Amino acid sequence: MKLSAVRRLALAGSLSASVALGLQLQHGRDARPFGASVAFAQPRAAGVAMLASPAEGRARLIDGKAIAAAVRRDIKASSDELKAAHGTTPGLAVVLVGNRTDSATYVRMKKKAAAEVGFYSVDRNFDETVTQEQLLATVEELNADPRIHGILVQLPLPRHIDEAAVLESIAVAKDVDGFSAENIGRMCLRGGEPPLALPCTPAGCVELLQRSEIQVAGKEVVVLGRSNIVGMPVAHLLQSMDATVTVCHSRTADLPAQVRRADIVVAAIGRAELVKADWIKPGAVVIDVGVNSKPAPEDKRGYKLCGDVDFDQVSLVAGAITPVPGGVGPMTIAMLLKNTLNLTRHSLGLPRIPLRRQQ
Amino acid sequence: MKLSAVRRLALAGSLSASVALGLQLQHGRDARPFGASVAFAQPRAAGVAMLASPAEGRARLIDGKAIAAAVRRDIKASSDELKAAHGTTPGLAVVLVGNRTDSATYVRMKKKAAAEVGFYSVDRNFDETVTQEQLLATVEELNADPRIHGILVQLPLPRHIDEAAVLESIAVAKDVDGFSAENIGRMCLRGGEPPLALPCTPAGCVELLQRSEIQVAGKEVVVLGRSNIVGMPVAHLLQSMDATVTVCHSRTADLPAQVRRADIVVAAIGRAELVKADWIKPGAVVIDVGVNSKPAPEDKRGYKLCGDVDFDQVSLVAGAITPVPGGVGPMTIAMLLKNTLNLTRHSLGLPRIPLRRQQ
Repeated sequence: MKLSAVRRLALAGSLSASVALGLQLQHGRDARPFGASVAFAQPRAAGVAMLASPAEGRARLIDGKAIAAAVRRDIKASSDELKAAHGTTPGLAVVLVGNRTDSATYVRMKKKAAAEVGFYSVDRNFDETVTQEQLLATVEELNADPRIHGILVQLPLPRHIDEAAVLESIAVAKDVDGFSAENIGRMCLRGGEPPLALPCTPAGCVELLQRSEIQVAGKEVVVLGRSNIVGMPVAHLLQSMDATVTVCHSRTADLPAQVRRADIVVAAIGRAELVKADWIKPGAVVIDVGVNSKPAPEDKRGYKLCGDVDFDQVSLVAGAITPVPGGVGPMTIAMLLKNTLNLTRHSLGLPRIPLRRQQ
Repeated sequence: MKLSAVRRLALAGSLSASVALGLQLQHGRDARPFGASVAFAQPRAAGVAMLASPAEGRARLIDGKAIAAAVRRDIKASSDELKAAHGTTPGLAVVLVGNRTDSATYVRMKKKAAAEVGFYSVDRNFDETVTQEQLLATVEELNADPRIHGILVQLPLPRHIDEAAVLESIAVAKDVDGFSAENIGRMCLRGGEPPLALPCTPAGCVELLQRSEIQVAGKEVVVLGRSNIVGMPVAHLLQSMDATVTVCHSRTADLPAQVRRADIVVAAIGRAELVKADWIKPGAVVIDVGVNSKPAPEDKRGYKLCGDVDFDQVSLVAGAITPVPGGVGPMTIAMLLKNTLNLTRHSLGLPRIPLRRQQ
């Protein structure tokens, strides 16, 4: 079983590395939850408590940082339970090549999050001169290591490495990104075998909606962007939850008109503050997946982060909105942990933790 | 590598058996044609010649029977060439269990079509009492048989058989339906390895549009139905050709309003003449995948076939439309043959024949 070349493409594409970073955790679909009946404790209370009260005339803030913290607490509790009952600690392996600052930062964040929920984690760090054979041998070793349940190869890899070949060498059972063709196929097919893992950022978007008690079934969803790592999978997940989904992209004729129809907008198109207030139906829910930078002379770095949505103006029209940073971003790493936990459960023959049912 | 349980689900679902029948052929995406540069001879001329001239105030008829015949001629020419150059005859195996009239009819049509283009074909017929072990052993034998390039197990299978297990035992390299999770995943992922085969009915819809010189890029497409065998894959194929695609289903709030936005409508929802004239934007293209029956006292059978579209009335509004029968139906079997040819080419290390580029 092989991993696809998705991550390479993702990072080469128009989405920011910060979005592409995500890449990891197991969920079940809402309409047909993957993996059965085990659910996190008290997610409803946690989800609701996290939301700021809406100020007069402003959208309710969907606080991804707080929701991600609640998810991590649930993961830690499930993981502790697993250790007590089965003597098994979820294990995540991270393979890092070279010394790119952004890659090192993401890897550090992932390892920190894994440590906080009590996972076992191992690093395999290589300098830029590593050979393809060394990387393949490393993946093979991790594939065979029973303490490791998820394998993450941080991208991009140096040019002399066949990235697709390295990714495809990861066993599907340890595909913590959920990006193998087999996992993606299982996600798209209704019924049949569920995927072992779901792409993390899309799963994070769904978790944000669910923990914010936002109804999806029967709603009109417009997804901006059709990437392998966000647009395509999030459209499938929301459709499986009975939304009517339209996927827009660079060739869409009238983007504002499409967005104006939406009860829920998922923006993952990688263009700073593209989505304006007059694109938004009053009261719509806006999930902003973009991570871009914009000039900010007042900031000592000279720039600041922003999403694909003009947050300040859109907040005056939308019913609920995620900020950037602090919205979808923190969910991505939380979902990586959830994928690791679920691959561990799967390795023990236990049912996986599905997306929470709410509707 | 395993085949998924799609076909079982498809046949158990709301789509008619006649639609579900399809299930087979290899294509490439338009925007990124799968498998490279080999193209059928003169498809443009053939496509155009096939279309009836539009009568005053009536939609142009998209003649699936004539287009399918042109596709079969192309397949025969490619197959003859393959035999001459490589000494290899494409081989299709059909496994049929029991004596259902519809299954027997479909199998006969498939075998006849395969014979007409000069394919080698074998039958494996069993009565209702066949055991799972016998079927699995048969698939294994066909997997190992170098004369066979595509394996089709006609559904449904009797209740005592685990249909999913039988389908999953088919090698992906011989998955002539294109329904394995791996092939579906490859279809959905942009870039990376293309699928070895595409679901036949969706591929047939695309071929109808392309051979009718209907532009897809930048257009609004509304797909009615989200089945594994038609709605989901046809939405992906049309999106990969740069359409903006909305998938509607039983939970969609206002179906007529959605359809009214569409430049191209693909109806695959399995309800007789559901789509009315006032749902259609004047000049839109209507592809009717439904195969339903409706009472017809004047007919000696007491019923006649109809699609998901009210053909007589919609023809007065649409710009182009497929009839039922004689529209999408004949394309499905033609695409089965194309899948078989392409799996044969793949087995020889030759590039597959992609979807024709037109835009």
